[in-house]
Amino acid sequence: MERIDSIKNVRIKNAKKLHTRKGREKLGSFLIEGEHLVEEALKWKVIINEIYVEEKFRIPSSWDINNVPVYLVNDNIMKEICETETPQGIVAVCELIGRKPLQPEENGKYLLIDQIQDPGNLGTIIRTADSVGLSGVILGNGTVDIYNSKVLRSTQGSLFHLPVVKAELDDWIEKLKAANIPVYGTALDERAKAYNEVSGQQSFALIVGNEGSGVSKDLLARTNENLYIPSYGHAESLNVSVATGILLYHLRK
Amino acid sequence: MERIDSIKNVRIKNAKKLHTRKGREKLGSFLIEGEHLVEEALKWKVIINEIYVEEKFRIPSSWDINNVPVYLVNDNIMKEICETETPQGIVAVCELIGRKPLQPEENGKYLLIDQIQDPGNLGTIIRTADSVGLSGVILGNGTVDIYNSKVLRSTQGSLFHLPVVKAELDDWIEKLKAANIPVYGTALDERAKAYNEVSGQQSFALIVGNEGSGVSKDLLARTNENLYIPSYGHAESLNVSVATGILLYHLRK
Repeated sequence: MERIDSIKNVRIKNAKKLHTRKGREKLGSFLIEGEHLVEEALKWKVIINEIYVEEKFRIPSSWDINNVPVYLVNDNIMKEICETETPQGIVAVCELIGRKPLQPEENGKYLLIDQIQDPGNLGTIIRTADSVGLSGVILGNGTVDIYNSKVLRSTQGSLFHLPVVKAELDDWIEKLKAANIPVYGTALDERAKAYNEVSGQQSFALIVGNEGSGVSKDLLARTNENLYIPSYGHAESLNVSVATGILLYHLRK
Repeated sequence: MERIDSIKNVRIKNAKKLHTRKGREKLGSFLIEGEHLVEEALKWKVIINEIYVEEKFRIPSSWDINNVPVYLVNDNIMKEICETETPQGIVAVCELIGRKPLQPEENGKYLLIDQIQDPGNLGTIIRTADSVGLSGVILGNGTVDIYNSKVLRSTQGSLFHLPVVKAELDDWIEKLKAANIPVYGTALDERAKAYNEVSGQQSFALIVGNEGSGVSKDLLARTNENLYIPSYGHAESLNVSVATGILLYHLRK
């Protein structure tokens, strides 16, 4: 195993560039930290270009990494590469995931995301979308980058399990409607329908939106129906990840 | 309005002590940051001992703060007092909330929390508990402090809206069962029941647990029934705040 001892090593410098969206797009790769995410990436055939480990890290013998260069680094270098405050001793550089173009399918279930800003929310929502067995997640413009380290951590690997693509939400709504898939927006206003008045669906699309301003009005005007979750107490609203979980599990037949 | 210009001022020093649980317990008070939380505290009659504002902050004229000392501070001092990286220009020092002892009531709905560690999760869960109209939230030992600034921020003020008390969860389970309120644990293991096989309840208690290890086995052994949320995809589990939202909204009649 090759050892890297200098922070000035070009590989280390390049790995650090992956902390920003610009760097990831330029180099076509992203970082994942920690044993669980690396294991998920291997299992789901994400292309891993290289792995960095600290001496203390024990590589599980079940990992198929014969073709992946593994570099031994000290804890200083690990801290430089990692974005978490307490690195777990392993980091991998992966190629950005090449996704096939996604089209609405019969009996498909979709989640459309309009300008979610908080990385933890986006990651948690993708994890929920995976758990509920969605056919795909569509990210509109203005949503936080899925390769952001906090998003990746919150997905717990779910990003690798289902199609997550960037697209124009307007176009997607039209495609879904053309495919006879009902599109539900989420709204707080009075004209929306309580979610529990709608029954489970074989096929549906749900749109969730920004933490502060919700789903944009343009999109809400194009849906089949807009739903809200009643508050029986004094909270004005729910966290968007929680609301998404309640709605997706309710809508799923 | 009195102006404080020195970081060494005793009030500022005391306010900073409220960043730790130890300091909060010693001084019997806690900090809230931002206009929304201060407004909620005023509305819900939380005792506010003093308020610190920056010059740029405009106090809404509707606020009833005639009896609260307000101090003007510069941005440096505000940064010292605040725990967020981008202070919103207002901080209040409040007295720890004196809660009446809570007892299970007929038709009550309760949430028991076993060792939740992440402040964002705890705050989001309290916000959800408020929205679903619970009668109270009971925090067992080993759960993160509710007066932690991240918890407070994530509650969005819900902490002020419903009883949130610390207690022994063992004792509470016995009390709930004595009051004929069914107690549901949450578990991932095979012996648990899918949550959607249980119908909505007039009265119930739900136990949710630690992010890594779930609800402790001792507690699960004492419940009436343990529930799990099926995964229809490849995610091994859901985020605990999301799972709590799905279960509470499902169990609520």
